[in-house]
Amino acid sequence: MRLLFALVVSLLTALPASAGEAPRARDLGVPFNGVPGPLNAITDVAGVTVGQTTLIEDLADGRAVRTGVTAVLPRGGDTLQRPVFGAWFALNGNGEVTGTTWIEESGQLEGPLMLTNTHSVGVVRDATIAWRIRQGGPDASGYYWSLPVVAETWDGHLNDINGFHVKPEHVDAALAGASGGPVAEGNVGGGTGMVCYEFKCGIGTASRIVEVLGETYTVGVLVQANYGLRDELVIAGVPVGRRLREHRIYSEPDPNAAGTGSIIVVVATDAPLLPHQLKRVARRPALGVGRLGSIAHNGSGDIFVAFSTADGSLGRSDRLLTHHSLPNDVLDPLFGAAVEAVEEAVVNALVAARDMVGDQGRYAKAMPHEELIEVIARPEH
Amino acid sequence: MRLLFALVVSLLTALPASAGEAPRARDLGVPFNGVPGPLNAITDVAGVTVGQTTLIEDLADGRAVRTGVTAVLPRGGDTLQRPVFGAWFALNGNGEVTGTTWIEESGQLEGPLMLTNTHSVGVVRDATIAWRIRQGGPDASGYYWSLPVVAETWDGHLNDINGFHVKPEHVDAALAGASGGPVAEGNVGGGTGMVCYEFKCGIGTASRIVEVLGETYTVGVLVQANYGLRDELVIAGVPVGRRLREHRIYSEPDPNAAGTGSIIVVVATDAPLLPHQLKRVARRPALGVGRLGSIAHNGSGDIFVAFSTADGSLGRSDRLLTHHSLPNDVLDPLFGAAVEAVEEAVVNALVAARDMVGDQGRYAKAMPHEELIEVIARPEH
Amino acid sequence: MRLLFALVVSLLTALPASAGEAPRARDLGVPFNGVPGPLNAITDVAGVTVGQTTLIEDLADGRAVRTGVTAVLPRGGDTLQRPVFGAWFALNGNGEVTGTTWIEESGQLEGPLMLTNTHSVGVVRDATIAWRIRQGGPDASGYYWSLPVVAETWDGHLNDINGFHVKPEHVDAALAGASGGPVAEGNVGGGTGMVCYEFKCGIGTASRIVEVLGETYTVGVLVQANYGLRDELVIAGVPVGRRLREHRIYSEPDPNAAGTGSIIVVVATDAPLLPHQLKRVARRPALGVGRLGSIAHNGSGDIFVAFSTADGSLGRSDRLLTHHSLPNDVLDPLFGAAVEAVEEAVVNALVAARDMVGDQGRYAKAMPHEELIEVIARPEH
Amino acid sequence: MRLLFALVVSLLTALPASAGEAPRARDLGVPFNGVPGPLNAITDVAGVTVGQTTLIEDLADGRAVRTGVTAVLPRGGDTLQRPVFGAWFALNGNGEVTGTTWIEESGQLEGPLMLTNTHSVGVVRDATIAWRIRQGGPDASGYYWSLPVVAETWDGHLNDINGFHVKPEHVDAALAGASGGPVAEGNVGGGTGMVCYEFKCGIGTASRIVEVLGETYTVGVLVQANYGLRDELVIAGVPVGRRLREHRIYSEPDPNAAGTGSIIVVVATDAPLLPHQLKRVARRPALGVGRLGSIAHNGSGDIFVAFSTADGSLGRSDRLLTHHSLPNDVLDPLFGAAVEAVEEAVVNALVAARDMVGDQGRYAKAMPHEELIEVIARPEH
Repeated sequence: MRLLFALVVSLLTALPASAGEAPRARDLGVPFNGVPGPLNAITDVAGVTVGQTTLIEDLADGRAVRTGVTAVLPRGGDTLQRPVFGAWFALNGNGEVTGTTWIEESGQLEGPLMLTNTHSVGVVRDATIAWRIRQGGPDASGYYWSLPVVAETWDGHLNDINGFHVKPEHVDAALAGASGGPVAEGNVGGGTGMVCYEFKCGIGTASRIVEVLGETYTVGVLVQANYGLRDELVIAGVPVGRRLREHRIYSEPDPNAAGTGSIIVVVATDAPLLPHQLKRVARRPALGVGRLGSIAHNGSGDIFVAFSTADGSLGRSDRLLTHHSLPNDVLDPLFGAAVEAVEEAVVNALVAARDMVGDQGRYAKAMPHEELIEVIARPEH
Repeated sequence: MRLLFALVVSLLTALPASAGEAPRARDLGVPFNGVPGPLNAITDVAGVTVGQTTLIEDLADGRAVRTGVTAVLPRGGDTLQRPVFGAWFALNGNGEVTGTTWIEESGQLEGPLMLTNTHSVGVVRDATIAWRIRQGGPDASGYYWSLPVVAETWDGHLNDINGFHVKPEHVDAALAGASGGPVAEGNVGGGTGMVCYEFKCGIGTASRIVEVLGETYTVGVLVQANYGLRDELVIAGVPVGRRLREHRIYSEPDPNAAGTGSIIVVVATDAPLLPHQLKRVARRPALGVGRLGSIAHNGSGDIFVAFSTADGSLGRSDRLLTHHSLPNDVLDPLFGAAVEAVEEAVVNALVAARDMVGDQGRYAKAMPHEELIEVIARPEH
Repeated sequence: MRLLFALVVSLLTALPASAGEAPRARDLGVPFNGVPGPLNAITDVAGVTVGQTTLIEDLADGRAVRTGVTAVLPRGGDTLQRPVFGAWFALNGNGEVTGTTWIEESGQLEGPLMLTNTHSVGVVRDATIAWRIRQGGPDASGYYWSLPVVAETWDGHLNDINGFHVKPEHVDAALAGASGGPVAEGNVGGGTGMVCYEFKCGIGTASRIVEVLGETYTVGVLVQANYGLRDELVIAGVPVGRRLREHRIYSEPDPNAAGTGSIIVVVATDAPLLPHQLKRVARRPALGVGRLGSIAHNGSGDIFVAFSTADGSLGRSDRLLTHHSLPNDVLDPLFGAAVEAVEEAVVNALVAARDMVGDQGRYAKAMPHEELIEVIARPEH
Repeated sequence: MRLLFALVVSLLTALPASAGEAPRARDLGVPFNGVPGPLNAITDVAGVTVGQTTLIEDLADGRAVRTGVTAVLPRGGDTLQRPVFGAWFALNGNGEVTGTTWIEESGQLEGPLMLTNTHSVGVVRDATIAWRIRQGGPDASGYYWSLPVVAETWDGHLNDINGFHVKPEHVDAALAGASGGPVAEGNVGGGTGMVCYEFKCGIGTASRIVEVLGETYTVGVLVQANYGLRDELVIAGVPVGRRLREHRIYSEPDPNAAGTGSIIVVVATDAPLLPHQLKRVARRPALGVGRLGSIAHNGSGDIFVAFSTADGSLGRSDRLLTHHSLPNDVLDPLFGAAVEAVEEAVVNALVAARDMVGDQGRYAKAMPHEELIEVIARPEH
């Protein structure tokens, strides 16, 4: 058994790393609707920065660290000073996102949004508070306490999750390294050890540009995707999972590993939306994962957070605030953009991920690009 | 049995009607916290109008009509043209308020708020649509459909509720007759046949004036109160219900009549609040009825709706809207005002109500003012 | 203009009615996953009955009645005596389903579930109460009041909706005529005047059989579908709407008619599920309409109700109740079944609907079967 | 300044500790309704155990540790093997309770319920996972991951909260030390540094015995109380806070310290209730704090969790589960019990707390028992 694993490991690690830039889903010819932003990433929303700490290390006794932290800062370096309006929704709540009770109550997201593995939510939460304290003074809302937003998916198939390998310094590094520009996808940050549709998966991102009432707005999405069964996967309407059934190379010593998992979706926009409107946006990822064939398994934490950077008035308690919002009647383009960007972000995560051997020799193979191209090009049922 | 009822009826109807203006709770010396508005009524919120149709008629076979319709128009005659931000909360949802799904989704209340008896919600709803159609054109939000907000409590103890006596013209009359100024309380409108804490009850109202960030705002409340058991009633901290146990004059041929019932609370304010903030306000009536001793019975529809008239921008779909809001950090005076006004509005309903004999000779006696004054003046446990 | 309409009417009505049984989606070769029940209908869930009143009449001045009532009785003739566990969810709440507050609070659905047009919800609600009263005694839960569940979608494009043509007798007829067996689809009952994806639409149904822990359970779905834009429609992964763009024959004198609309989904099952588990089932239709390309428009009331007939203990208040439930860990087959049945039920509604000319000569053409078969057979992007 | 604080410290610490058993609220003659269990504590619910770690230490530079951990185990040593049905509600969500998303989704509470300070939620969460792992195997629900429930209130007035003094071993100690029997109240466990109504406060507990359908059930409550302003406090209907205004001895160097705070309520019962019924119970603490004068401040995390130990079937995934429940119609005694027990538990926390000097010399004085007795005995407005 162990020998077999070792063999597979060497086979997998022998695969050549992609030379140069990794292709993204649309580079492979996967068709998507809508118009992406310049980066086709959450960072197309002005001000949003992303930082990621990726932890990959082999320890004694077959234990392997395959995890990390992803930080999304709604306003980059200005995130603590100026909250954003926010909202959340759980399509299936087998997961943790701390801070949601205050998001719901306040209508605001008052700091960064952190993603990590299920068993490291606590350390990331407290470390985010410590980081905030080090920035000096009470946070923007004037309180002396913090209720950080930390989300998770479970990487226990590939990662030694019960080794608690995420440390405060990894949180600090993700926060300190956050920047605009292209966002690394696949086996990185909180997504390092994630698996979806029984393919290696992880972090993915995408964006859409829409026009509403004569103005141009951006909707950006970042996912930490770790859900779904192979047979369920549909891409661009094609039952890719069933067509690539023979490509199932996925170790399953753990009977609970398959069919479980979760997806965290972060939707950012610069469109002026109030919290109750962002709640509407936060439900749309359900339609995006619906297009991909998801049934939202019992074991899945399918939890979605949306925020808008448009409002610059938040964070003051000493005066009346002024806000803008789009009328409800014109929100459809934003709803559609959210659906489309979620769909593409997950496929981007699948395409960007690389084969990985992890804890106790368990492994997950990435989606083969050539075969994907082929089945997409020849759709059949 | 019938003879006994007849006797009671004549005894009750022999009670002299109060000469001149009916006193309100604070006229009797019941102590309340906070500063009420000039009318101590929901109509202290500028623009809010209230119209009521009271139906009292004796029919053949002991059947009696004791019901009605109360209409609250957030912006008076301008209600259909300019929606208000709104929100709702059910402390115990054994009741109906139509239109809440769209309030929740849109963050808006797009027309009048109607109150009636449980079995007449339908006729009031459709008649409100017909009324709206007669005002011409699509409603303010640009749609060609309406989702009216109609709330109810159950008056089947005193009213021949299964006779369906509310008709479209009664709805029209309530809407047409809506005005500012003092609001009739007690046995009027939707509250005509209502009973609370086993005393005759009905419509009540109150208001509070608070200062926030240097500005003065009004919180107005209207209740249709029909809930609670005698022993539970606490007024101004005094267990009035238990102290007035001997005054229990309440026919109970119907084993389901006691302990059931509901309370609808409408909270209006001119403070600039966004929908998610109004949702917070809409939860505060729970604390107000808590002060009155409520445990929110299983059979009670304790449902609360809050709206703000501050926002004048709603109802347009052709441009970016501009809103104002108070920061979350300064909302406590408004929360307190809502709690206090609910407490006083219910006591006002109890004080304003008059003894009533109704369907099949069933009756409910009003709270005796002198005894109330006495037990309040001599608090003991 | 009027002439043109008249012409179109005669053209459309000249279309031969389908000889014999109308085909259903899978008869046309549309591929679906999963195993349907014998009827592929909500009535595959034992005890569930469906009754429909279809109102089609031409009035003076071009006014046309194209509406109706659909009644779903969870336990057929025993519905009032024995409530079922139930739950609901609003993906986008631009619609009305009365009674949801009590479903949420009680975990029960205590009577029939009625579907009609938006402006007739009231009459159907009160008529359902009157019908219940005529059945004698208080309802099963021991109360003397009723909070009926009545859902709606908007048929104002084809129906003279502001003529309020649904009357109490139509409600009675739907309830009285309810039966098991095949369920009429398309232009019937509450779905008579409905349109989806800019094709004529209406009532649709489907079912799935799944095995859980060695037992066989049925999930049945009924939809009243009236939502979506042509370009959004995806069937079996194929962008059918865009491929059949040239078949757009849909009158649009009313700028609000397109892109609005709603979908009501009723999910029935005989699997033993508790209310909080039914709430999980009630969210799955979101994934079903996701597969069909929906983005859940702002103007759409996408509201889903789920119930289970498994529990026979409800409706008693005099003793401890005994329930059974499936463990959360084994619910995935039921979740998948709900998603699949919703997807097929909507396509069934599209396939079953027939061309209709309605109010003021407005019309909607049904999906052409041959073209549908062709584009499904030749999937391309 | 520093000298002054030192002086106050020595004055306060010079106060004699109560000799023998600390009195509880009803020992002082505070009147409450209802019948308490033998311990008048959450542990009256059979199987429930409570463990507490109290951290009190003076560090350099005036820094002081005044915090801790309280663990509530629904089934004592059997907690991990057999989940309980559970539910939660946020009256005002300015707080964190991790794990609520899964409680909502699953209807279950799958491990202990932990209480600590706001900035130590993370360490307590991850340490609870580590503790669970050490118990061996996957947890009862069969998953390999944990979503612990950890609640908090803010003790930053008296505790060096940003020193992060709660460590994993303190979590272990609270869990290991959990037992039935009397529960320590006041300055203990998670409540060590808490303040309510500007009096020293902390952990409180109470219980009620009720009879439903001929069976006796227990409702037990534990609170970590840290909310409210002095003037708001009402006990037994008496405005105790205003009457004891002159006793306000509370340092306020921190402008944010007053008026903020939170209350976590845990309601346990052995009554057979399903999750949707427990959700109803979880809303009743709002009425209990309403009786105490709360308005639920913006800055307050008023979050309530309820669970029932009655169901022994949970935790198995391999067979149909059997449950019992009380009919909705008979729940009122349980609702009333929850309201009453919350009211008494908070007063117990106030009565049990002792004067405390804490971080940077800040202090909070406990409610003076004699004065409390006096104002309760002589109620006046």
